[in-house]
Amino acid sequence: MKLLRFGPAGQEKPGLLDSDGQVRDLSGAVPDFAGDAVSFEALDRIRALDIASLPVVAEPGRIGSCLASVPNFYCIGLNYAKHAAETGAEPPKEPIIFNKATSALSGPFDPVVIPRGSEKSDWEVELGVVIGREASYVSQADALSHVAGYCVINDMSERAFQIERGGQWVKGKSAPTFGPTGPWLVTADEVPDPQTLGLSLKLNGETVQDSDTSDMIFGVAEIVSYMSQFMKLVPGDIIATGTPSGVGMGMSPQRFLKPGDVMELTIQGLGEQRQEAIAAS
Amino acid sequence: MKLLRFGPAGQEKPGLLDSDGQVRDLSGAVPDFAGDAVSFEALDRIRALDIASLPVVAEPGRIGSCLASVPNFYCIGLNYAKHAAETGAEPPKEPIIFNKATSALSGPFDPVVIPRGSEKSDWEVELGVVIGREASYVSQADALSHVAGYCVINDMSERAFQIERGGQWVKGKSAPTFGPTGPWLVTADEVPDPQTLGLSLKLNGETVQDSDTSDMIFGVAEIVSYMSQFMKLVPGDIIATGTPSGVGMGMSPQRFLKPGDVMELTIQGLGEQRQEAIAAS
Repeated sequence: MKLLRFGPAGQEKPGLLDSDGQVRDLSGAVPDFAGDAVSFEALDRIRALDIASLPVVAEPGRIGSCLASVPNFYCIGLNYAKHAAETGAEPPKEPIIFNKATSALSGPFDPVVIPRGSEKSDWEVELGVVIGREASYVSQADALSHVAGYCVINDMSERAFQIERGGQWVKGKSAPTFGPTGPWLVTADEVPDPQTLGLSLKLNGETVQDSDTSDMIFGVAEIVSYMSQFMKLVPGDIIATGTPSGVGMGMSPQRFLKPGDVMELTIQGLGEQRQEAIAAS
Repeated sequence: MKLLRFGPAGQEKPGLLDSDGQVRDLSGAVPDFAGDAVSFEALDRIRALDIASLPVVAEPGRIGSCLASVPNFYCIGLNYAKHAAETGAEPPKEPIIFNKATSALSGPFDPVVIPRGSEKSDWEVELGVVIGREASYVSQADALSHVAGYCVINDMSERAFQIERGGQWVKGKSAPTFGPTGPWLVTADEVPDPQTLGLSLKLNGETVQDSDTSDMIFGVAEIVSYMSQFMKLVPGDIIATGTPSGVGMGMSPQRFLKPGDVMELTIQGLGEQRQEAIAAS
């Protein structure tokens, strides 16, 4: 299934993209997509619905983030070897985990707001993993059975805030609109192998990131198993699994977002995003 | 007001400690304490209730964390000069921000589970700040008007996971039960100055941490204002504001938790916590 949320910001309704490409309104049938509402049990309740009987949304309008809120917005750092190299870092020996503020969650077509004082706002196309079942001390072999689905994420990053302001990366990852997520939560049954997905990002029409999830240093199963040794993952948690090379920080000369710049992201089977950068008010 | 949650884990109800020290059941009047349910508007609705008419809970039993869940569980690192020194670090020039997994949230008297493979589980008594109104780009002068209240937090930390496993601190801060919070959310009107609170922690009856929030490097107003430059703080967010000296990592020789060890935490006006450390199953 391809699950989505449509409507004005803050008033989105849950919906489903049917096999004809029409949006069906799920708001009369299930709660908004957050936390336990994307557990395996909840997804099974959606599967059991008679989709053809659900209202067609003729004009869905704005598409919101595919999750209403998330218990945790985790990210994995430096998970593609060429990206680690472009940042000047060694490939990590173990997954690097950090967080985005959950208030950074944003729609896939919403403008990205360059924060006040930012001179180094940067893009990162990433495969997002959404947890569907609690995961604590799970094996790699069992890990994917805890994944509800996948989505496109732009792990927007302010490099000065992230690296030059004393400490942990969350400072550079958390501005409002720094987490475009969606358009769809594609359930795991439609993604038989998460390590075979092409992903790319264009800046003003020019392809700057172009890779494949097969290039990840740590695959999805390894990430989920590894994280579950340190924390209990819960339904609705997002894990952004790292970005391939081609970010602005890695260019020579470095290149960062200016108001009016347009990012277009795509991951095979998971849909497309498009954001225009705007200045903070 | 002193707000709390009582009942078995996962089935807690919201309550209020009245002026006679009795627990009053709020579950018929307000939603469970999480997110917008601790906004200023929600707190005003509780204030408007006729407390004397609310049911007295004769035997409240277990006390849970004073928040049901949190949008973000932020922490400030190395915010007391002597603690920075005991860890071998310089006092930070700007606040260090990191996250706990929100699934670490735990009751103030629940056992603390030493995670599998842990040899360096450590204690940290901290003043917890709970946000009551969205905060984005707020001044220091205005910052405290965004704080709903305060609580005691034990920012439990696994030092090897935090420091020796490649990267960001969240790995060592996030195990289940690593976030005892409460017993009460004490509303801000009862804490006229958050920088004048004694706080201490006893290990097996011996006082190991004993300080005052006046010793913070960055005070609560500065922290809230600073963070709001990087992320939008939202109602229900917790900020654990750092721990004073006396953690196990800073002792010579170092001393870490063993099953059976008992931690007792107190902050002036905010109540007491007590946790026994137990081994992971």
